[in-house]
Amino acid sequence: MHAIGVDIGGTKIAAGVVDEDGVILAQTRVETSPDDVAGIDRAIAQVYTELAGSYEVGAMGLAAAGFVAADRSGVLFAPNIAWRDYPLRDRVKALIADDITVVVENDANAAGWAEFRFGAARDVDDMLMLTVGTGLGGAIVSNGELVRGAWGVASEVGHMRVVPGGHYCGCGHEGCWEQYASGSALVRDAQAAAITQPERALRLLELAGDVEKIVGPQITQAAEEGDPLAVELLAELGRWLGEGAASATALLDPALIVVGGGVVAAGELLLGPARKGFAEQLSARGHRPEAVFVAAAMGNDAGMVGAADLARI
Amino acid sequence: MHAIGVDIGGTKIAAGVVDEDGVILAQTRVETSPDDVAGIDRAIAQVYTELAGSYEVGAMGLAAAGFVAADRSGVLFAPNIAWRDYPLRDRVKALIADDITVVVENDANAAGWAEFRFGAARDVDDMLMLTVGTGLGGAIVSNGELVRGAWGVASEVGHMRVVPGGHYCGCGHEGCWEQYASGSALVRDAQAAAITQPERALRLLELAGDVEKIVGPQITQAAEEGDPLAVELLAELGRWLGEGAASATALLDPALIVVGGGVVAAGELLLGPARKGFAEQLSARGHRPEAVFVAAAMGNDAGMVGAADLARI
Amino acid sequence: MHAIGVDIGGTKIAAGVVDEDGVILAQTRVETSPDDVAGIDRAIAQVYTELAGSYEVGAMGLAAAGFVAADRSGVLFAPNIAWRDYPLRDRVKALIADDITVVVENDANAAGWAEFRFGAARDVDDMLMLTVGTGLGGAIVSNGELVRGAWGVASEVGHMRVVPGGHYCGCGHEGCWEQYASGSALVRDAQAAAITQPERALRLLELAGDVEKIVGPQITQAAEEGDPLAVELLAELGRWLGEGAASATALLDPALIVVGGGVVAAGELLLGPARKGFAEQLSARGHRPEAVFVAAAMGNDAGMVGAADLARI
Amino acid sequence: MHAIGVDIGGTKIAAGVVDEDGVILAQTRVETSPDDVAGIDRAIAQVYTELAGSYEVGAMGLAAAGFVAADRSGVLFAPNIAWRDYPLRDRVKALIADDITVVVENDANAAGWAEFRFGAARDVDDMLMLTVGTGLGGAIVSNGELVRGAWGVASEVGHMRVVPGGHYCGCGHEGCWEQYASGSALVRDAQAAAITQPERALRLLELAGDVEKIVGPQITQAAEEGDPLAVELLAELGRWLGEGAASATALLDPALIVVGGGVVAAGELLLGPARKGFAEQLSARGHRPEAVFVAAAMGNDAGMVGAADLARI
Repeated sequence: MHAIGVDIGGTKIAAGVVDEDGVILAQTRVETSPDDVAGIDRAIAQVYTELAGSYEVGAMGLAAAGFVAADRSGVLFAPNIAWRDYPLRDRVKALIADDITVVVENDANAAGWAEFRFGAARDVDDMLMLTVGTGLGGAIVSNGELVRGAWGVASEVGHMRVVPGGHYCGCGHEGCWEQYASGSALVRDAQAAAITQPERALRLLELAGDVEKIVGPQITQAAEEGDPLAVELLAELGRWLGEGAASATALLDPALIVVGGGVVAAGELLLGPARKGFAEQLSARGHRPEAVFVAAAMGNDAGMVGAADLARI
Repeated sequence: MHAIGVDIGGTKIAAGVVDEDGVILAQTRVETSPDDVAGIDRAIAQVYTELAGSYEVGAMGLAAAGFVAADRSGVLFAPNIAWRDYPLRDRVKALIADDITVVVENDANAAGWAEFRFGAARDVDDMLMLTVGTGLGGAIVSNGELVRGAWGVASEVGHMRVVPGGHYCGCGHEGCWEQYASGSALVRDAQAAAITQPERALRLLELAGDVEKIVGPQITQAAEEGDPLAVELLAELGRWLGEGAASATALLDPALIVVGGGVVAAGELLLGPARKGFAEQLSARGHRPEAVFVAAAMGNDAGMVGAADLARI
Repeated sequence: MHAIGVDIGGTKIAAGVVDEDGVILAQTRVETSPDDVAGIDRAIAQVYTELAGSYEVGAMGLAAAGFVAADRSGVLFAPNIAWRDYPLRDRVKALIADDITVVVENDANAAGWAEFRFGAARDVDDMLMLTVGTGLGGAIVSNGELVRGAWGVASEVGHMRVVPGGHYCGCGHEGCWEQYASGSALVRDAQAAAITQPERALRLLELAGDVEKIVGPQITQAAEEGDPLAVELLAELGRWLGEGAASATALLDPALIVVGGGVVAAGELLLGPARKGFAEQLSARGHRPEAVFVAAAMGNDAGMVGAADLARI
Repeated sequence: MHAIGVDIGGTKIAAGVVDEDGVILAQTRVETSPDDVAGIDRAIAQVYTELAGSYEVGAMGLAAAGFVAADRSGVLFAPNIAWRDYPLRDRVKALIADDITVVVENDANAAGWAEFRFGAARDVDDMLMLTVGTGLGGAIVSNGELVRGAWGVASEVGHMRVVPGGHYCGCGHEGCWEQYASGSALVRDAQAAAITQPERALRLLELAGDVEKIVGPQITQAAEEGDPLAVELLAELGRWLGEGAASATALLDPALIVVGGGVVAAGELLLGPARKGFAEQLSARGHRPEAVFVAAAMGNDAGMVGAADLARI
């Protein structure tokens, strides 16, 4: 059965028809506004109509950044779109002529599911996905099942506390993992290093023009050129990623840890230190098999593919 | 179907016939030696024979403290019994006349399962069990399934790191949760307070006779009498329990957090601060329902009952 | 001998004639611009001329926020005034007809010295001054002598690290004491609490109108009214102040710890928790006398009075 | 004027005649028992009589491990000798025929003073001495004066807290600097690594025979041979030494940081990482001159020489 997957971002939605092997047969995009939730409903209906005109589809999955209800009917809360206890499924269904299955899924869960079904984790039953973006998102699969939690808000891995009294987080707490293992953390650490070790930050400042303008890809570029500070900064991010994953592994014992997000472009400059940090902090090493760290394989389409596939379940 | 549950401790095994409602119909005990693994095999066969003589049983579950193989056939490693990659299931089956199902389960998982099926968590699908003993053990149930992990060693919650550079743990790492939220941590903190705040430790020293002889139940007793230091010590343990549970909840989103182990005798002196610590550290409070902290209900028989029940699955 | 003390702020200078008992006999003010360092020189000369016309003065001390040269001749670096290796003493002397002694002093050192000579610490030989403002400043007196350090930049107490991996500091490092024990920290913690514990932040939000507009005096006011969150916030600041002071005391063994800055208006709501935190963390309690925490006594004139007095030495 | 310096250890005292250039002209030793304080008095009188028979001496300084009274008359408390508020000066003077000056000094202060007057710090006015032994001791010299504190117990640098909730310390607190930067910390970290990274600890285990028997000099030896784990362990100790020194420098602004104790034999394997840790954590780098890290120069005689010299002041 083919299914449509829709990845709903703040300013656009991307949708595609996905077959049972995770192959995208067709796709389309529409621009949206994060404040206009009814407009988002209509945009979803529009892409559905467009795609369902050419393919026979049996279900549609909507990947949304936010807290998704456990029954997959809507969004409890979204940080970047004006959804508050919003019955997204029913609103969309009301605009569609056909009576097909529509489900709402958390976007990180959808992306993780795509890796589990068709990507880097397709050969295991237990995995932890870590998506390093502005924040740190994640997804957990245990014994072949997506861990959704009692109220649908499991896998908020970025808010595991890793340092008591640590960096302030936008969530209001201190020391959240994503304040140490995310693109934002990488940039802030680079900016701090430009203050405390200016003689080592010359290449970064050259690339960025100004300390306030440093962005992640510049750090990756400098590191790939061999710039020692940039290498250190990526290694520090990797170390926190690995050490936090060791804590998550104490709870979950995954076979595989999949790392996604833009910074994965740094490859071994990131994954090497992540593996080292993981190995150094993994409890009971030597008395257990060890999870493997790998890069995500599905790219930016993961959310769309995973949402489509989850709609078939 | 009735099943036998066997709780294998370091120096004795306790076994019982358990019905499908978790009721223990009969039980027995045998003393064992932790170094004599063949003797433990024989003791298990002996209690099986004794109990199966009076009741018709269809399965037997063996609860063992240690890393249990994912296929439930044996023990990879045990800290207190001389099992190393030990095929416990087959050794025991070889000594039993009947051809019944035998499975090996981690003892904390078995106890957690008993709470999930028949005890404090019988009304939810997603729970986190925390057993505060010498260390901090646990069990995770997600969507009605026990989370075992890829290699059977999930739910080692006590080794989630809560303080980088924190207290040394017997596992060789620093800052493990069980070094802050366990009976051992409670006693060590009491001993430290006797050094730094001797004027406040008078009641504890009176009960213990000597700083080296302070034990957990004395702290609970003093706290129940209203001794301010003892109240603070239990509150500190509770706070770490709650704050760590908030981190675990970021990953797992349980509906219920069940606290077991001897120190639960302290009741609200422990659970109150645990709830406060949890609420203060829970991510996205106000945008999600909140897990409830409750005391375990199954007592010391939980391991036996849970192992029996898991053998039926 | 009378001396003139000048307190140089970002937008104005305040100057006074101070006698040997620390009494201000006359004072005056001039507005200045932080970017116009020559204008500041002239303003200092102007207030000197004005005051020296009515009183016989033998020396002048200039209190400046910044790194002051060890020979008291100028400012190495100032965060808020455009001084960079600026020979302030000689520039000012060149504008003054009389040949009197002129010295430059760090403003926190000057204020601390005033407390030591005439204020809260006048009866001891060893003191630690902690000034809780936007940041956390300080001054150290050891055996009756101001501790200036090898290069004049001692007593930057706010940058002692208290949490590895802790809050980012404007200095580029993580976990500086002033990120936990300052007015800025107080406000940020209040804002975070408004996110994580909105039901407890009602009074604060009522006073501030908006979470972004919370300021320190509102927290003090709410705490004085008995608002539990505000009381907790001040207690947390006090705890960090006391715990950090215990670390400083391990190095310095002062007889007295003087707390200054606007937040001292909170009185025991701040000092009580500071004393408790100090006592709980003080090394070797019971084997040593303990320093006493007191509020500063000299108010906003401390910098002026201290600079004048230091000019006489 | 010649002076006698006496270094009082737990089981022996070493004494010498020291000239004004810090040269030891003669020395002697006597065995003692830490429980027999009167016997220690007599042993001191004995070495005095012996040395004063051959040299004209004007004063005697007694270096003692413990809290020394601010008036240098005795010992408030000692961890390893049975002194409790013990008037050591008067007890010793009562046994000596001559009426000479006798003073009691803390042994770490005495050793630091020797480095300041005659050793590695003889060219500066402001220094911080760090003695890495079983614990972490220290001495502070500010503007040419020994910082003793209000009650004689300054410079207990090892008990500055560097990790909230960190390693337990024998003092009853958590996270004391000496739990991260001392010989004991080095050995414990090595033992922990032997558990968590056994494959990397082969050389250490070969040298020690058993994980429980690892001692500091073996780690230094392995590191000098190039063993990666041993190099890392020394670097970690060095890093904590340097980072803590950066905090102390925020308060004290020394020109020189002198590192003493047995582990200094590791040379750059220790000092290199210490300098790096210091530079990375030093506040306001670039706006201030930076203290230099150097190895102590006076060896084991530092306590004796420093005590003698302090007796002349």
